[in-house]
Amino acid sequence: MDDRRRLSVRCLTALGFLLSTVAFLSLTVDRWREPRLSLNQDEPATIPRIFTAPKTNVWADLKPDEADEVYRFLTKEWVDLNITRTPRHALGSFIYTLETLQPNKSDALPYLWTQDSAPPQRWAKAVLSQGLDGRSHYSYHAVGPLPVSPDTRVVPLTFPFTLGRNYVSKDMPDMVSTMDFCRSLAESVADITTELLGARVDRDDPNGPDSLLAFPRTVWNDAGHLFGWVQFFRPGYNSGANSILPQGIYARIDAVDGGNGSGGDTDADWTVGEWFYNGVMYENLDKFRAAVFEPGFLKTPSNVDGPWTDTEDFDARPDGRELPPPISIQPLGPRYKLDRKERYVSWFGFEFYFTSTQATGVSLYDVRFKSERVLYELSLQEAMAHYAGDDPMASGQEFLDSFFGMGTNAFELVPGYDCPAYADYLDSHLHRMGKTERLPNNICLFEFTSDHLLSRHTTATSVTVSRNTFLTLRSVSTVGNYDYTIDYVFYLDGAIEVKVRASGYIFGAFYARNAHKAEDEYGHRIHDALSSSLHDHVISFKADLDVAGTANDLVRLAVEPVTKTYPWDQPHFKQRNTMHLRDYPVERETGLDWPKNAGEFYLVYSSDKKNAWDERKGYRIVSGTGIGSTPHLTVVNSTVLEDAARWAERDLWVVRRKDTEPRGADPFNYIDPANPLVDFTRIANGENLLHHDNNETSSADGDDRYDGDLVVYFNVGSHHIPHSGDVPNTLAHTSASSVLFIPHNFADRDPSRESVQGCGCS
Amino acid sequence: MDDRRRLSVRCLTALGFLLSTVAFLSLTVDRWREPRLSLNQDEPATIPRIFTAPKTNVWADLKPDEADEVYRFLTKEWVDLNITRTPRHALGSFIYTLETLQPNKSDALPYLWTQDSAPPQRWAKAVLSQGLDGRSHYSYHAVGPLPVSPDTRVVPLTFPFTLGRNYVSKDMPDMVSTMDFCRSLAESVADITTELLGARVDRDDPNGPDSLLAFPRTVWNDAGHLFGWVQFFRPGYNSGANSILPQGIYARIDAVDGGNGSGGDTDADWTVGEWFYNGVMYENLDKFRAAVFEPGFLKTPSNVDGPWTDTEDFDARPDGRELPPPISIQPLGPRYKLDRKERYVSWFGFEFYFTSTQATGVSLYDVRFKSERVLYELSLQEAMAHYAGDDPMASGQEFLDSFFGMGTNAFELVPGYDCPAYADYLDSHLHRMGKTERLPNNICLFEFTSDHLLSRHTTATSVTVSRNTFLTLRSVSTVGNYDYTIDYVFYLDGAIEVKVRASGYIFGAFYARNAHKAEDEYGHRIHDALSSSLHDHVISFKADLDVAGTANDLVRLAVEPVTKTYPWDQPHFKQRNTMHLRDYPVERETGLDWPKNAGEFYLVYSSDKKNAWDERKGYRIVSGTGIGSTPHLTVVNSTVLEDAARWAERDLWVVRRKDTEPRGADPFNYIDPANPLVDFTRIANGENLLHHDNNETSSADGDDRYDGDLVVYFNVGSHHIPHSGDVPNTLAHTSASSVLFIPHNFADRDPSRESVQGCGCS
Repeated sequence: MDDRRRLSVRCLTALGFLLSTVAFLSLTVDRWREPRLSLNQDEPATIPRIFTAPKTNVWADLKPDEADEVYRFLTKEWVDLNITRTPRHALGSFIYTLETLQPNKSDALPYLWTQDSAPPQRWAKAVLSQGLDGRSHYSYHAVGPLPVSPDTRVVPLTFPFTLGRNYVSKDMPDMVSTMDFCRSLAESVADITTELLGARVDRDDPNGPDSLLAFPRTVWNDAGHLFGWVQFFRPGYNSGANSILPQGIYARIDAVDGGNGSGGDTDADWTVGEWFYNGVMYENLDKFRAAVFEPGFLKTPSNVDGPWTDTEDFDARPDGRELPPPISIQPLGPRYKLDRKERYVSWFGFEFYFTSTQATGVSLYDVRFKSERVLYELSLQEAMAHYAGDDPMASGQEFLDSFFGMGTNAFELVPGYDCPAYADYLDSHLHRMGKTERLPNNICLFEFTSDHLLSRHTTATSVTVSRNTFLTLRSVSTVGNYDYTIDYVFYLDGAIEVKVRASGYIFGAFYARNAHKAEDEYGHRIHDALSSSLHDHVISFKADLDVAGTANDLVRLAVEPVTKTYPWDQPHFKQRNTMHLRDYPVERETGLDWPKNAGEFYLVYSSDKKNAWDERKGYRIVSGTGIGSTPHLTVVNSTVLEDAARWAERDLWVVRRKDTEPRGADPFNYIDPANPLVDFTRIANGENLLHHDNNETSSADGDDRYDGDLVVYFNVGSHHIPHSGDVPNTLAHTSASSVLFIPHNFADRDPSRESVQGCGCS
Repeated sequence: MDDRRRLSVRCLTALGFLLSTVAFLSLTVDRWREPRLSLNQDEPATIPRIFTAPKTNVWADLKPDEADEVYRFLTKEWVDLNITRTPRHALGSFIYTLETLQPNKSDALPYLWTQDSAPPQRWAKAVLSQGLDGRSHYSYHAVGPLPVSPDTRVVPLTFPFTLGRNYVSKDMPDMVSTMDFCRSLAESVADITTELLGARVDRDDPNGPDSLLAFPRTVWNDAGHLFGWVQFFRPGYNSGANSILPQGIYARIDAVDGGNGSGGDTDADWTVGEWFYNGVMYENLDKFRAAVFEPGFLKTPSNVDGPWTDTEDFDARPDGRELPPPISIQPLGPRYKLDRKERYVSWFGFEFYFTSTQATGVSLYDVRFKSERVLYELSLQEAMAHYAGDDPMASGQEFLDSFFGMGTNAFELVPGYDCPAYADYLDSHLHRMGKTERLPNNICLFEFTSDHLLSRHTTATSVTVSRNTFLTLRSVSTVGNYDYTIDYVFYLDGAIEVKVRASGYIFGAFYARNAHKAEDEYGHRIHDALSSSLHDHVISFKADLDVAGTANDLVRLAVEPVTKTYPWDQPHFKQRNTMHLRDYPVERETGLDWPKNAGEFYLVYSSDKKNAWDERKGYRIVSGTGIGSTPHLTVVNSTVLEDAARWAERDLWVVRRKDTEPRGADPFNYIDPANPLVDFTRIANGENLLHHDNNETSSADGDDRYDGDLVVYFNVGSHHIPHSGDVPNTLAHTSASSVLFIPHNFADRDPSRESVQGCGCS
């Protein structure tokens, strides 16, 4: 899980002959990309596109010079606390990350929607890695206003956290020294691993075919004791395939001092306990070693790297492989407008800002369609992978990837593959460990035309058709073994889609084939000794919908069977079995699941704005164009998650919007799941959502000023039972999952009529 | 619903300047489409692609000369019955349709899978429109063997029908004369319609802005009495928009003789009863007329055609409209091979035959992947639209579109729009009413590259990517107001998708805005007096899966929460809340719904074939890349459907495959729903599906020779609550619905590795 380093991408096409084709297309595309505002030949073809956002992007990440200024300010402020800009040693106190503190919505709205309001103050958010009360912590601080002035100050950032404090115990041991301990542990059993696997840790050739790796899974029990299990893997010597090369040897480790604050900073902090192999627990290393060298000891097969982990079989020569596939081109340049500086986009009625954060990657703000408000914010909150298994590693494995950083791990995209060659590519900057790094070309923006139409109709005398061209803002976060492609997609009718596709290597488990286990209870056998390792992906997004304004209601519009008597059926049919619609307003903060038989529409209606037909303007929220309905977490009250991710337990949530609840999760929830900074059950806690008559709502809820501004949290993901076809990589076309926001009586009729470039054929 | 005539398509681009772009691209594409087997410049670039199916397409429709031969044979055979090749008058006996009688699978399999077997006999299937026992009927006959020889004979075709007979009463009145009656009826109330609507039936200008149409909805009650309601519409004078121009005037009509067999062949067969307007029932025309001309009579608004029914707003000039969108090109020709004569396709391991029938359109046969069997047949069975409403028309409205003909109404495709310009286009032939008509270019085949990858992974030192290029076989059936785009999609990993997208005009209802009705109980108001008219689309397909052979099992593989005690958790965690897998074999014919929280995988496993890892070869069936889960019919025990479409009541069915149950529905189910030729409950009737030990299954099921050959029926569709954005046309990107067949342990690892043309980037 830990080779998430940045890389530079130099593309070598797999098949040499393709080069000429690609070169030809690139040439053609380049020519076509020349900016041309008009096709009128009398006008010069080189008028530059000048496009400027109407307002400053108040959510934009700190520019490198801003970050540098804040770094300098902070190290000066904190000199007495011995906090440095960069870590001086593994456990020193230092500035872990630095980024923009998103303004409160209540401060940003006046700036966005009134003529003369000033932008909200600009603040930074700093995370310290810091000793505090004798333990190591991460702590949040707000720094502002910016730019630095005599008014600038540092204050603990507490208000966004339901825990009521701004710090979390850094319970995870130091990774570098723990990995080193694991390596030493593995070296100490080189005789055993050589006997069982023909492999051993080799510091000279760590990624060699006969080398071994050892990773731990550590956890705190309720009594505050840190322990864990180390598993052995082979490195993927041609790939990042180590997560499908488990070796089936596990060692128990315990923190000597219970882990109370030292963070396991040296080998001496750990002791080694039981060993587990082929379904048998050995009390200690001596007993394990004795058993292994006993004649007749039952060995399991091993997983050895080879061409089977290559993502391409270069020897195969199926018909057609000698030809390039169809490809999308953009003949005369983009039709969207992009203000690269402010990260502001305009496209066929859509307008929005975007930014990127280290924890959660790309997010959108102030999304409008045809000048009306749709969303104030659309952003990733957390990406969970929760495993199950019958070995010491898989049975307790889960990842909350915002801790590792969905933005931090959003690496460079491959032009022409990850996104079309004609896409616009943008960089991100990471401010961490006192430095600023550039992630080049890690966000792309492009239009694409579907293989299918947006609308069509054949009549007796004519046919009308319109193309389904959409706009996509894309990034890919590779958190260790998995690659999440995250799309925000815009359609000509005003629909907006959030789509996540998983690819990369699964995190497999060892398949021991012994008599002790129920084979396939946690996955299929997919290689010599590899279990496909059942897991759930649950990925949370926040949608702060402002459908035609902030005052909104969520309504479940149900399609229900009904038996009715109609006058026009008489006397022949006394009753008729039919169906009808019924509205169920959602009156309190709650979780919802996608309905049985897709029998309800979840609609966010404007509380006061109607279209020409006297219907409330709305947007529908629906599980979209992935595979089936997006699921929630299978595990009930997960032992390993505790309170870190209660949002995963339902498909959809609706809550009051509050400045004090800007996010439904926090990256540091991962390291103290029993005491998470953001406990989602304290956000979705049943508050009243009725606001039409505030006299009625009142005292019980504490806040009778609720104005109807609601927030929806929703999940995408999948129950992933990988099978042989997930080897070597999970395929994105069948791992996709999405949620769509579809206009529902939002306009007076289909807005795409204004922008279709169809064929009026007759 | 009845302007489903053939048309020829001549494409006029909406924006003149686009012409040059399109012409340029076409030119380029044409050049690129030259067949080139090799890019080696030493070889001639003009080697023709010669590609021949390994076997004859035994499912192919009758060639025109075959049909002509059968027409001649039949009219000679039936001269005594006074049956003619073409209808001599509206109610004469004649050959209604003629097409291939699909061979029994038990006859076709030996031919397909053994070296020396002869093809099955070729037979035709003729439908007669015929008087029988004093009533008018449709009857099925088998004609063969073909070509015509002394052995050729005509036999009643009864075995495929659960009803046990080969004919159905032609209960629907003759459409031509009934429409004529409705027109006369409307003319007789020209004073009323002029008063209420400013419009009247105008035989001289039937599609004029002030003209009217009148359509009936007729139904038989249980006692065998035919009655119905006529509704008034305006014609769409610029479009096929009449289905969104209801006028809110309804007249009750009754068949004078009860409709017993004469089929309502003259106006005199009908009487006019009550009238219904604005929520009020009037006992007869005189009372309605008197009320209308009473001072103060309450009129409702009307729906008048105008630019609002145009699918494009030519006056709007949004930014970007002056530029063409991205487009897909195919640089060096197709990578699939197509035998146009045998309708046989080969593409990256996939091989299949296809054909088309009048009732159900395109179907696939003998689908193989990497030389292994996957599906014997994949075919549309029926397409239902079931409405609800609180007016005499909408409340009882439903369509079973195979009666009108999903193949019959599959019209010419628009190149560059319906399918890429570089697609292969094929014709179909219709043999009906004694003639053969050609439907030009109504099937297309093309490869397309998605905007997203098939797989990708970024490691510390490299990134690998592979493009998601897929193959699509497409047709579009426009049955009156609706256009169904039907795709069979093939992916590089062996996945197969069935996808249906709806577009075209909805069939709206009149929105009276009176005090008598609960507004919006059956739809939203979407124009002056137009209700969006809630309806369910349920579209049935048959998948005769032969996963690695005919012996298959359907298993529900459930992901379930569980609490477990593990030795490696002790003593810290006595129990762990986690999840695991559990198999539930489906042991009897039954219906299934998509599982709650997507918590089960529906897998069709080979009963005996395993992959290298000792896992059974399988395919997963999953609700796919449409909007949410594909739904089943909301209405429980629908009054109007009776037993015509019980398949619509669950999402998925699994049944034994039998030669005597080739289809789950019949087009003529529509006209006698109480006594359907194919009653699905007699196909899915609980027979045992266990076949591993045939001694156990035995007597109770009658057939203890069951060999495990199962058939799955599944539905796609949607609960359609149209909203203002469905005006003028429903949009296909959010009306899409699909079911996917995804390999599950079918191969030893991902087969797309052999064909990806990715980027080994480092």
